[in-house]
Amino acid sequence: MTRVADETADALPVRLDTIGRVALLSVLLEQRELMVARAPDYRIVFGHVGSMEVEKIIAAIETAARREQLIGTEYAEEHALYHAIIEALHGVLRGQIALGSLLRTVGLRFALVRGPRLPGDRTAWIAVAMYGTIGQPIKGNEHEVVGLGINHV
Amino acid sequence: MTRVADETADALPVRLDTIGRVALLSVLLEQRELMVARAPDYRIVFGHVGSMEVEKIIAAIETAARREQLIGTEYAEEHALYHAIIEALHGVLRGQIALGSLLRTVGLRFALVRGPRLPGDRTAWIAVAMYGTIGQPIKGNEHEVVGLGINHV
Amino acid sequence: MTRVADETADALPVRLDTIGRVALLSVLLEQRELMVARAPDYRIVFGHVGSMEVEKIIAAIETAARREQLIGTEYAEEHALYHAIIEALHGVLRGQIALGSLLRTVGLRFALVRGPRLPGDRTAWIAVAMYGTIGQPIKGNEHEVVGLGINHV
Amino acid sequence: MTRVADETADALPVRLDTIGRVALLSVLLEQRELMVARAPDYRIVFGHVGSMEVEKIIAAIETAARREQLIGTEYAEEHALYHAIIEALHGVLRGQIALGSLLRTVGLRFALVRGPRLPGDRTAWIAVAMYGTIGQPIKGNEHEVVGLGINHV
Amino acid sequence: MTRVADETADALPVRLDTIGRVALLSVLLEQRELMVARAPDYRIVFGHVGSMEVEKIIAAIETAARREQLIGTEYAEEHALYHAIIEALHGVLRGQIALGSLLRTVGLRFALVRGPRLPGDRTAWIAVAMYGTIGQPIKGNEHEVVGLGINHV
Amino acid sequence: MTRVADETADALPVRLDTIGRVALLSVLLEQRELMVARAPDYRIVFGHVGSMEVEKIIAAIETAARREQLIGTEYAEEHALYHAIIEALHGVLRGQIALGSLLRTVGLRFALVRGPRLPGDRTAWIAVAMYGTIGQPIKGNEHEVVGLGINHV
Repeated sequence: MTRVADETADALPVRLDTIGRVALLSVLLEQRELMVARAPDYRIVFGHVGSMEVEKIIAAIETAARREQLIGTEYAEEHALYHAIIEALHGVLRGQIALGSLLRTVGLRFALVRGPRLPGDRTAWIAVAMYGTIGQPIKGNEHEVVGLGINHV
Repeated sequence: MTRVADETADALPVRLDTIGRVALLSVLLEQRELMVARAPDYRIVFGHVGSMEVEKIIAAIETAARREQLIGTEYAEEHALYHAIIEALHGVLRGQIALGSLLRTVGLRFALVRGPRLPGDRTAWIAVAMYGTIGQPIKGNEHEVVGLGINHV
Repeated sequence: MTRVADETADALPVRLDTIGRVALLSVLLEQRELMVARAPDYRIVFGHVGSMEVEKIIAAIETAARREQLIGTEYAEEHALYHAIIEALHGVLRGQIALGSLLRTVGLRFALVRGPRLPGDRTAWIAVAMYGTIGQPIKGNEHEVVGLGINHV
Repeated sequence: MTRVADETADALPVRLDTIGRVALLSVLLEQRELMVARAPDYRIVFGHVGSMEVEKIIAAIETAARREQLIGTEYAEEHALYHAIIEALHGVLRGQIALGSLLRTVGLRFALVRGPRLPGDRTAWIAVAMYGTIGQPIKGNEHEVVGLGINHV
Repeated sequence: MTRVADETADALPVRLDTIGRVALLSVLLEQRELMVARAPDYRIVFGHVGSMEVEKIIAAIETAARREQLIGTEYAEEHALYHAIIEALHGVLRGQIALGSLLRTVGLRFALVRGPRLPGDRTAWIAVAMYGTIGQPIKGNEHEVVGLGINHV
Repeated sequence: MTRVADETADALPVRLDTIGRVALLSVLLEQRELMVARAPDYRIVFGHVGSMEVEKIIAAIETAARREQLIGTEYAEEHALYHAIIEALHGVLRGQIALGSLLRTVGLRFALVRGPRLPGDRTAWIAVAMYGTIGQPIKGNEHEVVGLGINHV
């Protein structure tokens, strides 16, 4: 296990053979080039967004997906992505899909991944992972959150 | 970046300086000894459970926490753990905290972590991370899920 | 079965003997005069509303009910109608009673029906049916939705 | 408008050009042969189920879909159907996806429809419609409910 | 303010002029005869129930209401009571209407009250109040909960 | 039982030995000085707020808690209070943590209480009680609601 340049980080063995793991590690490790290089079966879109408005989170993710052409132009693919986003938000928001109306805010990194569920799967899936913090609109009064939504395309 | 023995895994740089990251990477990387060695500020309990009954998931996690004395004997600490578990289940179950009654089943690895929220935090927190699969009670008809709950102790 | 003037429609046999069926067919068939004529035991109010704000849907329905005097002036009847509306919205919105904050919009026809639950029932009930589309705020990116709420008056 | 043999039913003009309408009218009108004949772009599976256990509702619908080969054998199609069922249940159950644990029971007709969302749509969708009654486990103490779930396949 | 015989209790001034207050104080004060005497405009039914099964809570309350004839024999009144019970359970259970499946149990006192919403109201309402404890199925590992549901009859 | 000056109120025996009871009776009885005098083990903060915006309810309670120093300056105590508030709101709002977006408004008294769960408990807890009315934004079209949230500090 080699110690890498970043002194706060250690190199750990990581498996990247399922869509969810690729999505989660994309938001947890912040190693865009490495992820893309090590997960050749998957297309990955990276982004980040902070807001007190849930619709801005959704819009930022949908916009990134369209801009990078991760999804096609048919509504069916928008529909698939939308539900994956909402499922990921369940993990981030835990009970109520609301932010400012509950006097809380999030700062999130997100990753969108398209590819097979796992090695050998011949159907197409999309995963949305989110990782960041949630808390009061007061700097530092926050803790970490994660969310993962997976849907067939 | 050295390639490790496990041929499916690459060594990637990993930061382990916040309670949520420690918990999530504990379930994603399956490297118990490494995690314990590299996150000295945190106590970690590892486990796994598969069930169609939500109460069995909760019981498995509570039992692991007590057995490893991650929580004290006062009800206040049981209460903190319980709510962290329920919050993590929101990410895993995305909408309804139910399994068999919705004709679905999970297989999960979990990690319980106790320590500061982040470097410099002098309060105690508990994190519950879950990672695995959810799906029909038919082998292979499943996809990945993740959940993270964080609570003050 | 006679083919009617509207070339896209066929005449099918329809039973109109329960409050829910009257409400649902009122929004599905768009045959106001026919519905009123064939369901003499029921008072029906028809309307439509499109919005990204849930409160506007509720307000449009409450206003129609008051204007047509489907409900009395006591709060008890407003209360009955309100809960029937919220129940119908569960079917339309499926999980979160929210629209714009989830970056989605609806276009709905609605029908309010007052009368017995079924033939022989001597108590008064109110039904709220909604039918239309939900989707992104992009023309055509939408699919159908339906909701039905029934409450005693 | 011809009066049909069934004295309680009148023939009303019905449009059958969208997947949701086909599904809803299939459960509301109980005219299997007519529906199949008049909606040639859609495959329809009909069924009915009564239970105090939500998992039995889900199982009955999944079984009907497999038996009639409305869905393929890949998990992706099972996944599409599952989420359409859960969405339809939101309309039927309005707030909690639970039956017996809330001391209530349902008797439902259901229809599964596969085809385009609307005329001209070249993608495949699945719709699940449910119509029947919900109430106490006491004969007659019940009122009507409806649910519709639509998903891309 | 006179100190009463029960040494742990003080006599405090209490207003009993609204249906919710009558219901809540009935479960909080445990003074059946006093409540009945001081709230002559209201009919009150008292009870208690402990369970890990939500349906047993509902059944206990419905049975008490029927036995004391607080509600009539028409389904409309059963319907009114049922929804008031479910609303009260939202306060007691806070997020998921589930007990044993979430590995928790309750012990509750309940009161059912029938009468006007407030002085001068000429419509009939029903209130369901619950007060007790929720917690792990371990004696003492619990805290207090309350719920109130109010519905028109 | 002495009749007190306020002609609408009777003096009833009240136990004030648990955190939930202290919180609930603080909002129900409106006897600030008496509550403080009779519950010496507890610190109580009283307030009231009316709004169609949930975030204003939360902000009013958090502000009162900080102003009266019921909670410390560490985020852990803010976190404890926040979740107690959200739990209390479940009782008040019964299903959707939303007000104006559902075309309804509340007027609430609230009490924040800090101390042991019950006599002999050596851990610190916080309780949030709310009592008031919910209804349409039309004067008088409303009924009572209550909520109680309890969390370890």
